[in-house]
Amino acid sequence: MQQVLVSLGTRSYPILIKNGLLKDCGQYFLEHMGKSKVAVITDSHVAPLYLDQVLNSLQDAGLSCCSVVLPAGEKTKCAECLMELYAFFSEHGISRTDAVIALGGGVIGDLAGFAAATWMRGIRYCQIPTTLLAQVDSSVGGKVAIDLPQGKNLVGAFHQPSLVLCDPEVLNTLPDEFWCDGLGEVVKYGCIHDEALFSMLEEAAPYGRHALMKIMETILEHCIGAKAEIVSMDELDTGLRMTLNFGHTLAHAIETCQHYEGLHHGQAVSIGMYAITSLSEAKGITQFQTTDRLGRLLKALGLPWALPDIPGEQLMYAMQLDKKHTGSILHMIVLDHIGSCHIMDASPEFFAPLFA
Amino acid sequence: MQQVLVSLGTRSYPILIKNGLLKDCGQYFLEHMGKSKVAVITDSHVAPLYLDQVLNSLQDAGLSCCSVVLPAGEKTKCAECLMELYAFFSEHGISRTDAVIALGGGVIGDLAGFAAATWMRGIRYCQIPTTLLAQVDSSVGGKVAIDLPQGKNLVGAFHQPSLVLCDPEVLNTLPDEFWCDGLGEVVKYGCIHDEALFSMLEEAAPYGRHALMKIMETILEHCIGAKAEIVSMDELDTGLRMTLNFGHTLAHAIETCQHYEGLHHGQAVSIGMYAITSLSEAKGITQFQTTDRLGRLLKALGLPWALPDIPGEQLMYAMQLDKKHTGSILHMIVLDHIGSCHIMDASPEFFAPLFA
Repeated sequence: MQQVLVSLGTRSYPILIKNGLLKDCGQYFLEHMGKSKVAVITDSHVAPLYLDQVLNSLQDAGLSCCSVVLPAGEKTKCAECLMELYAFFSEHGISRTDAVIALGGGVIGDLAGFAAATWMRGIRYCQIPTTLLAQVDSSVGGKVAIDLPQGKNLVGAFHQPSLVLCDPEVLNTLPDEFWCDGLGEVVKYGCIHDEALFSMLEEAAPYGRHALMKIMETILEHCIGAKAEIVSMDELDTGLRMTLNFGHTLAHAIETCQHYEGLHHGQAVSIGMYAITSLSEAKGITQFQTTDRLGRLLKALGLPWALPDIPGEQLMYAMQLDKKHTGSILHMIVLDHIGSCHIMDASPEFFAPLFA
Repeated sequence: MQQVLVSLGTRSYPILIKNGLLKDCGQYFLEHMGKSKVAVITDSHVAPLYLDQVLNSLQDAGLSCCSVVLPAGEKTKCAECLMELYAFFSEHGISRTDAVIALGGGVIGDLAGFAAATWMRGIRYCQIPTTLLAQVDSSVGGKVAIDLPQGKNLVGAFHQPSLVLCDPEVLNTLPDEFWCDGLGEVVKYGCIHDEALFSMLEEAAPYGRHALMKIMETILEHCIGAKAEIVSMDELDTGLRMTLNFGHTLAHAIETCQHYEGLHHGQAVSIGMYAITSLSEAKGITQFQTTDRLGRLLKALGLPWALPDIPGEQLMYAMQLDKKHTGSILHMIVLDHIGSCHIMDASPEFFAPLFA
């Protein structure tokens, strides 16, 4: 059992990482969160695979529980489904001392987390992420949100979970596209924070998904350890936490231009990381040959690095909008070398050479 | 100018109290919250009276602002109006560094505060309460919420304002029923925390609203000072803050039984305070003759003390439900004597003698 702690004073919480942990989740829940009523929230992809296992384990631990299954997919992260969760909480008498379990990927984690953040001014919740992306990224750090027709994540909160349970074995049922999605973020941690992780990935990548799964407990520990350290130092995302956005400025622009119906997030991040590193290396900011090394790993992992076929002006415009939206200057994350990065203020014009 | 500070570390904020302060609100906003775009949220009662004055003052201070007017009344504190505010924020490009002003009573303060708490994971807001109840109670302390069809304040957050501006003169336009509403809470502060305030009220009450308005700056300073002190010590309502619920257990039961369409909150609280004090005095918990003294003041202020015509079993049942809902035992606030109270665990049966 690997255990990572997010240190946030009274809001500190542990992340447990272990193959097969899911079938004992009730026991871990009881140990860390105590006896309470539990509302399990999941989606229609995850429910047939893991919901019974989770409910049985909770019941075996003597916990009273109820569950709700929402449609799988991005569209579920909306105000209507949030209202559905509130009605579900009300119906089952979920009170201030009860708790929520978010069993699923980022959509379920963000939605259920936001419901927990706002039900009776905030109740406790436990994340059980079932995708690689959610395990290494969204389940840790307390950023919860829903989308509006006007934009993604426009409504949300910072509400830290009380416990995160990561079972690498659930990734065995993850479709390839979602697997790649998570890998993009895994590479990111290697780039910005952890050269040892990057090397580990370089070694295993040529042997495919099976080889990576063999060392997944260790990979998760590295990624989550990095995220926990960064979140502990910058809970409310006003400084260091921005480094987690490495590759994301261009990625968001790509996703926006494709109306979130083209490349997956991890693929867009992969392209974004490669693009900005090629630019910063050309300017002498990043160590010579870093882009090559990054490109080789992305290729070995089956991740894209070349820009998709979107006119440069469209991407630049999307970045301008994003900048306006957040009301701040553009903070670019650039690598010093693999395993180290810094924040650099820039304008979208920084990306212009890509489209020259 | 009276200034009260709510001490909450990095979330500390000042409450400014001054006759005529409203017409200079832009200047105070600028001084305390800096330059930003401001979204002013108000209702159809308050807008014709004060919105222009506020917008002019903000513009004179060089602040760019936009405003939205919602229907006056309790029904506005709902999910639909919340969504309307989100759309309004989006339309006007309200970003992380911008701010909200809640100009109105408790409904606007709670709704606009919750919108600010959740827009882009939380932006700053300023309360400008225009009712006595909001000035002494809901504008201070960061409890924000909306109602659901299933119950009041079921969805909410703790999100402290960055500034509270209290202008006693706005109370001149307050209808009598809302005036009484606030007075109930004013008496509460005297009872639980501040005998000097109680005596001040005893002295002025026989001479009516006009006499009270003459000393309103001082009354507000006492009430808000008490609330600020209590909130500073118990931001998340897990202990001391419960004392603010003096009289509220029975009050909530009355309001529930009347479907929130009978007595106003302050009137129900008035009855609740009198009832529990009569019970605790009978049991020897509260100083002899406290109930008489309280009753005399309530009468002089035009506040009710006698139970309305609701069957005892109905009230008991509503209290049982309330207890079940919050998932905790019933914490009763009982007076030691005027100006001092303590928390006592009890069951709804404590109230049984009232209906005997």
